Order: sequence, then C-alpha cells, then structure tokens
Amino acid sequence: MNILIINGPNLNLLGKREPSIYGNQDFDSYLVELKSLFPAHQISYFQSNHEGDLIDKLHEEGFKADGIIINAGAYTHTSVGIADAIKSITTPVIEVHISNVFAREEFRHHSFLSPVCLGCICGFGMQSYQLAVQAIVSKK
Amino acid sequence: MNILIINGPNLNLLGKREPSIYGNQDFDSYLVELKSLFPAHQISYFQSNHEGDLIDKLHEEGFKADGIIINAGAYTHTSVGIADAIKSITTPVIEVHISNVFAREEFRHHSFLSPVCLGCICGFGMQSYQLAVQAIVSKK
Amino acid sequence: MNILIINGPNLNLLGKREPSIYGNQDFDSYLVELKSLFPAHQISYFQSNHEGDLIDKLHEEGFKADGIIINAGAYTHTSVGIADAIKSITTPVIEVHISNVFAREEFRHHSFLSPVCLGCICGFGMQSYQLAVQAIVSKK
Amino acid sequence: MNILIINGPNLNLLGKREPSIYGNQDFDSYLVELKSLFPAHQISYFQSNHEGDLIDKLHEEGFKADGIIINAGAYTHTSVGIADAIKSITTPVIEVHISNVFAREEFRHHSFLSPVCLGCICGFGMQSYQLAVQAIVSKK
Amino acid sequence: MNILIINGPNLNLLGKREPSIYGNQDFDSYLVELKSLFPAHQISYFQSNHEGDLIDKLHEEGFKADGIIINAGAYTHTSVGIADAIKSITTPVIEVHISNVFAREEFRHHSFLSPVCLGCICGFGMQSYQLAVQAIVSKK
Amino acid sequence: MNILIINGPNLNLLGKREPSIYGNQDFDSYLVELKSLFPAHQISYFQSNHEGDLIDKLHEEGFKADGIIINAGAYTHTSVGIADAIKSITTPVIEVHISNVFAREEFRHHSFLSPVCLGCICGFGMQSYQLAVQAIVSKK
Amino acid sequence: MNILIINGPNLNLLGKREPSIYGNQDFDSYLVELKSLFPAHQISYFQSNHEGDLIDKLHEEGFKADGIIINAGAYTHTSVGIADAIKSITTPVIEVHISNVFAREEFRHHSFLSPVCLGCICGFGMQSYQLAVQAIVSKK
Amino acid sequence: MNILIINGPNLNLLGKREPSIYGNQDFDSYLVELKSLFPAHQISYFQSNHEGDLIDKLHEEGFKADGIIINAGAYTHTSVGIADAIKSITTPVIEVHISNVFAREEFRHHSFLSPVCLGCICGFGMQSYQLAVQAIVSKK
Amino acid sequence: MNILIINGPNLNLLGKREPSIYGNQDFDSYLVELKSLFPAHQISYFQSNHEGDLIDKLHEEGFKADGIIINAGAYTHTSVGIADAIKSITTPVIEVHISNVFAREEFRHHSFLSPVCLGCICGFGMQSYQLAVQAIVSKK
Amino acid sequence: MNILIINGPNLNLLGKREPSIYGNQDFDSYLVELKSLFPAHQISYFQSNHEGDLIDKLHEEGFKADGIIINAGAYTHTSVGIADAIKSITTPVIEVHISNVFAREEFRHHSFLSPVCLGCICGFGMQSYQLAVQAIVSKK
Amino acid sequence: MNILIINGPNLNLLGKREPSIYGNQDFDSYLVELKSLFPAHQISYFQSNHEGDLIDKLHEEGFKADGIIINAGAYTHTSVGIADAIKSITTPVIEVHISNVFAREEFRHHSFLSPVCLGCICGFGMQSYQLAVQAIVSKK
Amino acid sequence: MNILIINGPNLNLLGKREPSIYGNQDFDSYLVELKSLFPAHQISYFQSNHEGDLIDKLHEEGFKADGIIINAGAYTHTSVGIADAIKSITTPVIEVHISNVFAREEFRHHSFLSPVCLGCICGFGMQSYQLAVQAIVSKK
Repeated sequence: MNILIINGPNLNLLGKREPSIYGNQDFDSYLVELKSLFPAHQISYFQSNHEGDLIDKLHEEGFKADGIIINAGAYTHTSVGIADAIKSITTPVIEVHISNVFAREEFRHHSFLSPVCLGCICGFGMQSYQLAVQAIVSKK
Repeated sequence: MNILIINGPNLNLLGKREPSIYGNQDFDSYLVELKSLFPAHQISYFQSNHEGDLIDKLHEEGFKADGIIINAGAYTHTSVGIADAIKSITTPVIEVHISNVFAREEFRHHSFLSPVCLGCICGFGMQSYQLAVQAIVSKK
Repeated sequence: MNILIINGPNLNLLGKREPSIYGNQDFDSYLVELKSLFPAHQISYFQSNHEGDLIDKLHEEGFKADGIIINAGAYTHTSVGIADAIKSITTPVIEVHISNVFAREEFRHHSFLSPVCLGCICGFGMQSYQLAVQAIVSKK
Repeated sequence: MNILIINGPNLNLLGKREPSIYGNQDFDSYLVELKSLFPAHQISYFQSNHEGDLIDKLHEEGFKADGIIINAGAYTHTSVGIADAIKSITTPVIEVHISNVFAREEFRHHSFLSPVCLGCICGFGMQSYQLAVQAIVSKK
Repeated sequence: MNILIINGPNLNLLGKREPSIYGNQDFDSYLVELKSLFPAHQISYFQSNHEGDLIDKLHEEGFKADGIIINAGAYTHTSVGIADAIKSITTPVIEVHISNVFAREEFRHHSFLSPVCLGCICGFGMQSYQLAVQAIVSKK
Repeated sequence: MNILIINGPNLNLLGKREPSIYGNQDFDSYLVELKSLFPAHQISYFQSNHEGDLIDKLHEEGFKADGIIINAGAYTHTSVGIADAIKSITTPVIEVHISNVFAREEFRHHSFLSPVCLGCICGFGMQSYQLAVQAIVSKK
Repeated sequence: MNILIINGPNLNLLGKREPSIYGNQDFDSYLVELKSLFPAHQISYFQSNHEGDLIDKLHEEGFKADGIIINAGAYTHTSVGIADAIKSITTPVIEVHISNVFAREEFRHHSFLSPVCLGCICGFGMQSYQLAVQAIVSKK
Repeated sequence: MNILIINGPNLNLLGKREPSIYGNQDFDSYLVELKSLFPAHQISYFQSNHEGDLIDKLHEEGFKADGIIINAGAYTHTSVGIADAIKSITTPVIEVHISNVFAREEFRHHSFLSPVCLGCICGFGMQSYQLAVQAIVSKK
Repeated sequence: MNILIINGPNLNLLGKREPSIYGNQDFDSYLVELKSLFPAHQISYFQSNHEGDLIDKLHEEGFKADGIIINAGAYTHTSVGIADAIKSITTPVIEVHISNVFAREEFRHHSFLSPVCLGCICGFGMQSYQLAVQAIVSKK
Repeated sequence: MNILIINGPNLNLLGKREPSIYGNQDFDSYLVELKSLFPAHQISYFQSNHEGDLIDKLHEEGFKADGIIINAGAYTHTSVGIADAIKSITTPVIEVHISNVFAREEFRHHSFLSPVCLGCICGFGMQSYQLAVQAIVSKK
Repeated sequence: MNILIINGPNLNLLGKREPSIYGNQDFDSYLVELKSLFPAHQISYFQSNHEGDLIDKLHEEGFKADGIIINAGAYTHTSVGIADAIKSITTPVIEVHISNVFAREEFRHHSFLSPVCLGCICGFGMQSYQLAVQAIVSKK
Repeated sequence: MNILIINGPNLNLLGKREPSIYGNQDFDSYLVELKSLFPAHQISYFQSNHEGDLIDKLHEEGFKADGIIINAGAYTHTSVGIADAIKSITTPVIEVHISNVFAREEFRHHSFLSPVCLGCICGFGMQSYQLAVQAIVSKK
C-alpha cells in the first residue's frame, strides 16, 4: 500500500521545538523507524509551513494514494481550505497529533479537519503516526 | 474593459470535487463559454491555493484592472489578509460563490470579504461569474 | 417568462429615504427602465410594509410565476414567516439588496431568507434587480 | 364549550407545503374530522399570515372563549407581540405544533409563546390539535 | 405644534391588560387629560397591532408632523422595519414606555428603536407620554 | 396496547415535593385513575432516581412495548445517555412534563430528549400523562 | 419639594468635553436656568468622579430627599455599588443621560442602574434633567 | 500486560442500535476477535449504563491495570465525575470512539475526558479498540 | 442534633487522589476527629459515586435530619437532579468543598446546588466540613 | 491573633437596607456579639464605600494581620483592583457574604475575589462572619 | 517637555508585590533612573488606588501636560470612567503595562483604555515607561 | 546587535494603502531613516504576503538573531502557525502595529501573537518600529 504522511507548520522543528511538549526526536529519524515497522508498505513524507502547499499536495496525491496521514499542526485549527481539500479528494485521510491537543490551549480544541477525516488519533507522541499507519494497513 | 477573475483554494478541482455541490463542469471549459458571452471585453483568469498568491495578485492587478471578480473559496471565511488587500487597492472587487453558502455549514455564513467588496453574488452555480461580469460591464 | 419583484418595508420611500445609502431614484421610474431591458419578459411588481402581505403574495404567485425576486428590506433579518413561505412554494426565489448589507450594522448581516432562496445578489444599487432578472432569464 | 383554533403564517398551505414535514391533509378537511370527535363542543377556526391579525383575534376572543389553541407557525419564534397578547387575555391558551420543532432548525427551538401558554403539545401531526382540544375539554 | 402619538400592539388593552404593570387607566381617557395639559398644541393619536400599519403611519406623518411619540410595545424588541421607518423620515421621534422595561424580562432590555430615536423616556406610567410631549414642546 | 410510563428523579416525591409546582397528588393514586380511563390497555409504571436505571429500562422494554411515556425530570436537561437510549430503541417515546418547563428556570428550557422523541406534552399537570396515553392509543 | 441632582465622572467637564456629544454649556450655568424653571422647589446639586462619593451621597440624602436625579456617567455601565445604593434607599431615583446612549458604543447600552431606578430619560441634551424634575414634580 | 476495556451507556446495544452509525457487530463477538489479535495480553471487559458503576470500576482497576481503554459513550460529553475518576487513578487511560464524533451533533464535539486521558482514538469503527490496545502494548 | 454528611463521586479516594489538591488525609480518619469536636451531636456519613444514590439518600434523610452537609464533588457542576432533590426536601442543606473550586477549571465555577442550598463553604480543606457542622449547630 | 474584618459598599446600611435579604441587625451591634465569642483574639473592623479605600486598607494591614475577612459587597463582582490587592499581600483573606449570592441576580454569581481568597463562606446571614473567624482561629 | 506618569491601583506595591510578574524594583527608585535618561524633560509622577483620583488627575493635567503615560493597573480592564476622562482631555495619553497582559488571565486581555489612547506599550517590564517617554519625546 | 524586522501581508503597499490609517511613507524610505538612528546595529528586513514565508523566515533567523520585530498585519488575528513559530524559536520577538488596532474593527482586537511575544507596541505610526528597536537595544 501507498501511504503519504503530511506534516504542517513548525513540525520541521521537531526535536528542536518545545521538547517538553513534542519530545526530542526529529521526524526524519522517526521516519526511518516507522518505515522499518511496515516493510511491506510504501510510506512517503511531505512537510511544509505553507497552507497552500498542503492543499496542493492533497490534490496531487489524494486521488491515487491508499491513505493519507495528516498532522496539520496549527492549520488544524484555522484552515477551512485544507478541510475542503480533504473533502474534495477520494483517498481517506487520518488526522494525527503528537500531543494531546485537548489538554492544551482552548483554541487547539477545535479542528476544522476532524469532521472530514476518517478518524483522529492524538496524544501518543510519535507513536500516533504508527497507529495511523496501522489503521490504514489493517483496514484493508 | 479589463476584467480579472480570481479563484481560490480547491476551485482548481471544479468538475472533479463534490459535483453535487459544485457541478460537473471544470472552470477552463466554463471560461471559454464566459468569454464568448462578452467578446468586447478582456477577461483574464488566475487560480491559486495559496492565500499569499491571491494577495500578491490583487496587489499586482488591483490598481489597473477595471474590475476584479473573486471567489476566494475557503479563504472567504478565514482571511483577513485578502480582505485587507481588497481594501488596499483601487479596482472594485465583486465576491462570487458557486453554491449558496448560506445554505451550508455555519462557518461558511461569515465572509471577511463581503464588507470590503462592492457587492456579492452567490448561489447561481457557474452563472454567478457571468452575473458578476455583467455587473461590471453594465455599471460603466 | 413571468417574473415578480417583491419589495418589503420602507422600499416605497426609495429616492426619498437615506439617499446616501439607497440612491436618489424611486422604484417606479427604475421599473420602467428595467422592463425596457427585458422586453420579451413579463415583469410585475408588488410592495408592502406588511409582513403578512408579503407572505400572502408569495403564496398567491409562488406556484405560477417563473421566478420571484425579493428584497424583503428589514424583514430579511427578522422574518421566519417569509422564509417559511419561500420554502413552501415552488417558484425559485432570488434575494436582492440595494446596499451592501454586510458593510452595515451587525444585525443586517444575518438573513433568514438566504438559506431558502436560490441565490443572493447584493450591493449593486438598483442594478441588483437587473442582475436578478438576468439570472432567471438566462437560467432557462 | 367554546374553543377557538388559531393558525398562523403558511398554515393555509397545509397539504400543499413540504408534505414530508407537514403531511398531505389540508386543515379544512381535518377540521371536519376534529369537530366530529367533539360533537358536544363548539370549535371555531381562524387563520392569518398577519401577526397583527393574530393579535386582534386573540383580543377579540380572549375574554370570552373557554379555550384557545394556537399554532403560531413562524411567529412562534419571533413574536413578542403575540406572547404579550396571550398574557393580556383571560382565556387559557395552548400552544401546538404539527411537527416536532425540537428536531428541526436551531431557531425553531425557542418559542416566545411557551412561557405564557398553559401548556404545549408538539410533534403529533394533526393529532396535536385533537390532544389540545382534549386537554381543554377534560380539564373542566 | 402638530404632535402624533403612536401606540403599538396590545396597548389598545390598556386599563384591561395586566394592571399591576400597566395601570388601570385606558388610553382614551388619558388622552383627554393629556390634551388638556397642552391646549396650544395639536395632539393626534394612532394605535395598531400591525407592524405594517405602524410603518405606514410613520411614512404618512413622518415628513409633516413636528414630533412623533412612539410606544411600539412588543415591536420595540423585534422590529427592524419600524426602526428603518424612523430613520427614513424627517420628523424627530421619541420612544416611550409605560413600564420600566429594564426591570422586566431580559428580551425587553433591547430596543431596535432606541438608537434611531431622538431620545427615550420609560418607567413613568402614563406620565411618560406627557414628558415626551413636554420634550417636543420645550425643545422649540 | 402495552404502554410503559417512566418517571425520573424526584418524581417519587410527587404530592410531597413543592406542591405549588407539582400539585398534591402522588403518582400511585393518579395511576389508578389513569388506568381506569384506558381499561382496554395495559399501562405499566417504572420510577428511578438513577440515570442508568432509566437507560436499562428503556433497553429492556424499548423493543417490545407499543409506546413509552417518559418524564425524565431533571435528567431531561442533562442526559445525553437517555436521549441515546431513546434513539437506540424501536418503540416510539413521548416526552411529558407536569409543569410548564418553559415558564421556569432557563436551564429547564433545553431538553436533550425532545429531538429524539416522537412528540412532547408539557404543562397540563398530571393530565399530561393522560394526553400522552391518548396520543399513543389514538395513533393506531 | 426637595430634589437632588447627582452627576458622576467627567460631567464636571461639561461644556469643555467632546462638545459634539455633550454640547457647549457647562452644568453650573444650566443649573441656574433649571432652578428658574422650578422656583417653587429646592434643587441641590452634587458632582464627583469617585464611585464611593456617589454612594455616600445617595446614603446621605436617600432617606430624606423627595426625589433624586442621577446621571452616573461612566459608572452607569460598571457600578453594581451605585445600583445597590439606589435599591437600599427610600427616595425614588430617576436615571438621566444627556446623549442617546443607545446610539453610541455597545458597552454604553447596558445600565446597572436602570432596573433599580423609577424610570429613565435619555437623549434630550441638558433638557433631560428638566424632564426628570418635571417627572418628580408632577408625580405628586 | 493487563488491559481493561470499559464501555459506557447504550454500547450494550452494539449491533442492534443505529447500525448505520455503529455497525452490525455486537461487542462480545468483536472481543473474541480482539483477544485473538493480542494473545500475549490479558484483556478484560466491563460495560454499564450507570455513571457511578463506571467510576467504581475505574477506582477498582485504576491502580493495578497496565492500561484502561474507555468508550464512555454519552457520558463522554456530560460526566465530570468520570473525568475526575480518570485523573484520580494511576493507570493511563485511552479514550476511544467507534464513530467520528466530530462529524456528528455539536454536543458530541466536547469531551470532558479528553484532557485527562493519555490520548484519543476515534472514527475507526470497532478497529478503534484494537488501535488503543496497540498503543498500550507498543508503548512499553 | 442529627447531622448527615454526604460525599459524592471520587471522594472515597480522599488521601489517595491528587494530594496536592485534596490533601493526604482519608475521610474516615477525619470523621473520627470531626465527631470528637462535636460530642453532643449525632454525625452520620454517606458516600457514593452514583448520582441516583445521592438523590435517594437526600429523600430518605431529608425530612428528618436537622441538617445535611453535601460535597457533591463532580456532580456539583452537572446534576440538576441533586439540586431538585435538595429543593424537594425540608432539611436545610449546606454545600461544602475541600478545595477552592473558583481557583480551578472554569467548569468548576458553576454549581447547580448553590442556589438551592442554605449556604456554601469552600476552600478550607477538611476544615470546610467542621465549619458547616458549626453553622448548623450554632444556628439553632 | 489579629483579625481584620473589611466591609464594602452599602454594608454601612445593614439593618436599614433591604431587611428581607440582609436582616435587621446593624453591623456595630453584631460586632459586639462577635467579639464576645472570640475573647482571646483581636478583631478590628473597617468599612468604606470607596473601592480605593478598601485597596488602601488591604495594603496597610495585609502584611501584618493574621487573617482578613472581606465582604466586598458590590465590588465583589466588579473589582479587579481589590482582587489584585488580595493577591499582592501576604495575609490570607477569606471572602464572606451575608446572603446566598448564588440564589440572587446572575451578575452576583461571579466573584473576582474568590479565586484569590483562601476560601469563601456565604449564605449564613451574620453568622458567615463568625464562621470565617472560626476558620482563621482553628486553622492555626 | 512636561510629561506626567500616572500609576493605578496596587502599583504602589511594586518591588513588594508578586515579584515573579512585576520584578523587584520599586517605582521610586526606577523613577530616578528614568529621569536621568531624559534630563531635558520634566517628568512628574502620580499614583493612587482610587479610580476617582485618577480621573481627577487626568482632568487636572490633561489640558496642559505635553504627554501622559498611564498604567491604570486593574482599572484598565474595568474603568469606563478613566477611558472617558482620556477622551475628554486634549493631552495625548499612552497606555503602558509592565507585564505582558495578553499572556495572563483572560480578563486582562481587554482594555477600556486602549481605543482612546494614542498607543500602547506592554510587556517590557519597567522599560515600558522609558519607551513611552521616548515615544512622546521623539514624536515632536 | 543583529535585528530582523518582519512585515506581513499588505505592508508592501505602505505609503500607497489607506493613507489615512497607515500614513504616506513607504517602508523602504522609512528603513533608511531607522537604520540611521541605530548605526551601531545591524537591521535587516523581510516582507511577504505568505503566512508560510513568515514562518520559514522565523525558523531561519529565530535561533541566531538578537531580536525580531514582527508586524504580521492581518495574520496577527488569524495565524496560530506564526504564533507557534514564535514559541518554537529562541530569539525574543516584539509585536508592533502602525495603527492603534484597538481603535479599529472588533476582529483586530485579538492577536494570536501577543501572548507568545515578549511585548507589544502599537499605535505610534512608523515610530512603533523605532521604539521596538530601542526596546531590544536598551534591554541588553
């Protein structure tokens, strides 16, 4: 299966940014680990701080990938555009968050993406991504 | 007259995206039709999924075009930046929507753009654009 | 085609009332102009300051006219009854406003009619009516 | 006993209007049925789309009828005037609704009339009126 | 001077309706008293339970009377239409209330009319009308 | 027909609790009366102060009774669980209240049950139950 | 009769402060005028910018004056303490405002004092005080 | 490892209740499947429609189990008591939902439990439980 | 005197649960201390995690005890049912809290019980109970 | 121990003001009683209607008294300044109210002081002060 | 130039009050420093815990000083009176805060003063005052 | 010291856009002036209309610059992403605005950036930038 992971703004700083919330591991090293857990599947990765880039990528892959995992970071809470993109494509999308967003600031409790995603996994640190891959892989 | 149509995020998927809401026609084929209805006028077209690109375009054309028609899609409901750009330029801008946004989700009922546009036309499908061109053309 | 224009409260004062918002032309003289633009069609007109009269008129014509154009004035923002009437009839209804209601007082930003009309055209002065007729006529 | 049924806006279209919500029977034919169920009592009927007419009627009958049953339709949600009229008269008033208003749009969940009526019966289709007559009749 | 007093819905029941709030005097007998206090001025009177009638009357007299005193009753809290009528005319309008509306239900605390009237007088029983006449008369 | 009446918290105190609101009759003596009015039907009764018991009972009877009448008392305003139970079963459920809840504290104006019940009857004292039985019996 | 006028914060600047809202006359010169209109009555005057002083004064005079007229200025909108003082005393209190507070900023639309005063007079410029004196004087 | 699954109200009806939302499988048959996927671990199960029972169970197991998976159903949205219980114990708790609660009614968007759980998994049907077990098992 | 102390959900974990908020002492050992301070009075104790049990207990003792002290824990903020039970009984009830609920999460600032209790004592740790007993004892 | 009682606005009128809410006893006579109950302790007293005086007093005594008991009256609900003063000093402060503020107007339900005080005692009439003294004295 | 610094409630405790928020320096010693930085200008200073005093001072100096710098402390968030005073005078006023009020409690995020001041400087500790002086001095 | 100034959307139009609000000077000419005031320091400048570009720039410079001054324009009010970027980096950031945002539209009163910046300076026209540089420079 062909799985795409999309990370949104500031997630390029993982390992460097607020380690008490996001941990010490950068995403590239985690990705190696994650791929090794699912050797039978193709996992590709995209990160951008630009809302438009995330929409473009969803359009580009959203009619051919088997599953998309998105951590839209801050855009989770502000982007109707990404939500519309998810609704517009045919690939199922899973929303993930590293931290437990519901235990943080009020404005992080609302997600424009949740109602248009298949499901949501949040609060398990980097493991959230692995569970999302698991969800896609074991669905089929 | 020189008229610019600007389409925002996800409108590049017209004809492909949620056809029960947006119809089956893609914008390029519609544009041919539209131009043929107004042969005496110059109609140009720009689409981007990037908020910043839409602002840049408004700056670029907003002091020389005779009229701008904008369907900012999802950014309609979230972008103070595009609204400020419209206020900053001298060309009059008309807001259009393909669907009747007031008959959809609550968050689509508020537009940051409406108060700074000349007027708003929504709910007429692709015809919304034609009415907007008509509005500019018959104003003069 | 048979088209009915319905104007609500205070629109009988057009030309006389707050000209900086509504302009200097009274509706009767505008109606002559409008009819001359669409000589192939039958355009009739009704105005009342009574919510009940507007409902009665919608019932009376709403199963036989080809299109209804309504500017419900102040009732736009307060009348569930007119909205229910529009939902109850079979003729498609278009909402128009002379001024850009979204650039005015907060309470004028909400319309009970918008979600049950086919579409909405606002902010183009008297031209709003012409665009609405155009919308009906070119739809067929 | 002398019982008055008052129907508000758009209820003259019963049987014709949105049958999936309001059913296929018009009120006149229902009224015949209803009267036959309570042959010992006088049941009169009034309908208007005008808020003022409903207030006038309440004033006229509200000091002599034994009971009033009101389905104020859309005015239920917007009319302080009808509520004040009900408070001003001495005949007890029962509020009825054909549909279950609480299962419909948010703005139909609030009634200005409920706090000033004796009680409320809603959601039983045309049977709501029969239950209200029953309530008046068996009270005495 | 030519002064018009307009009373809205349910005020025809004065003297009969909720006397603990509105007192025992009917308006006609009060009007005789009031006129006797201002023998030099012409005071006329209009009452209706119909929102549309109140608007019609404001249009009719609002360009020739020297002052209008309005107690719009329940419409005070729901009618954008009457407020628009007051804004549309040239005669100054004073809002009065018999009871102290601010000491009653929450929904009576907001008036659509207050911002467009010259001023507001409330809580003085029938005397509120006399003070309003005084205000018009001593202004000149 | 097989009809179940379910009473929620504090309704075991009827006749003893706040008689100015709920009257002086206890439910057991009322039940005898009620049964005598509908001798052809089986009316059973259940009361509990436990939200879970009410849900359990709805599950137990909700696939076999012909009609359920529920006065969930305080849980009306707080229990998503009972509302979900009503939605989960196949027997139609009618909501009743002894007092006119809309004339009492603000927090009693919202019911989680109303949108999932067939209909609602409130404000008729003990008679509310009789009207609900009537509604079930005469429906068939 | 013994009448006390109390002015709150910033009203000592009358004639000097924002003349487009409050006019050009200072209160002392107005007071002379006002007294001359009611030669049979004793009118005293107190002004302070201190909330506590206004409360102290109300306590001091509120059991012996025949009437108190208060323009609490900004404290109108923020002072529960002055409202409590008015409720605590036995002299009736009338609220006045020079400007039409309902036509100004949103936060000026709410008054803590209105529900505990006898009545309210606002929007008549300095004349508001005269009308209030009239109200007290002609009440008796 | 010792893992406890707790299901709240109405989840005993799984397979029987609203299958379009919750699917056709009952929980007992699913549990057999789930256990077979994690043969090395002890998975126990508890269901109740009583808020108090859920709290009691959390207290009982919450200091000895290695992980608790809770689907509190309707209590998710109303129970501060269960949230407090989760905060009071030492075993980490994972919140799961079968359906995508964010795509349903507004009142299902808020969870009292989310901020006090380790993480949340929702929208994957029965698979949500498997992912939660996975999360506990692979954490260690 | 006969005094009953009722503790609600999670208070059985006192001494074990979040000691930084609730302290280290369990309630049983505290109760011994408390009884020794009031040797002349009968103090009984009841704890349950079930809302229904708390209501049952209030009914059972609420017509014979001299005073009831309730710390309803989480149900303080969600239970209309317990509030109604308190209103339904004749024994005066005092609300206590160990922690200062107003210095904690927003949802703990509202109590359904406060308006129907005699008074409220909160923030004094275990001493809150002693002050409540004092209040009952010294009242008589 | 050295204990200061501070009373805020309108509490100088105790015994005179709204006796149905506040009782008939003035504070001075109560103070004599209170002192006699705690002969071993020094109880001083301060009252002012001025917010600034209350702040000044808190500053003056708040670094040397053993405990402060404050009934800030109306300032409870409006004064951030007094709350900041309480936070700024080192003496623990207890909030008291004579009446049950939660059973009164909505605006009396919020206290700026509660979150920064040690605890709150309300609804016990004058006895509230005695309980507060007890709380300070038995704490040590 | 003549510059006045006004400090509001609790700022007399600077250096003593919550040093983690406000620092360890008292204002008097800071003032010496500040004056030495601007030897060419006259800097005077006023502090009071009384809202009325702050208004009086603004009136007194607000028509002659070249600039006023105000840190109204808690009154920032509650005083319409001070805001009105600032609007009433002719000297430009700058709002300063020592701490970053936007990073603190919700109720500190709103300032009645901001819209009527020239500008706002906050979050720079004592340096905020220096920047404000700089703003005045370099403006000219 | 190394100082970076970042300007957000529409600020490239300074001098051209709404001069009554933003003045007539373009930023480039102002920058020359500003640099000349701080010859000892390195001041660099970046402007973009793209939210993503602003985030990228903050990442790029936010671990090496000595101070960053950001005027995020419209993104101030809508961008959680920029706020997260500011929290993620180590360089202190100062928020500036040319106009007094608190004296403009309601939606400009809330800033996502304020709570994560060191401080905020607004309303001083172009001088706001100079004060911010001053703040950085004199801090060290």
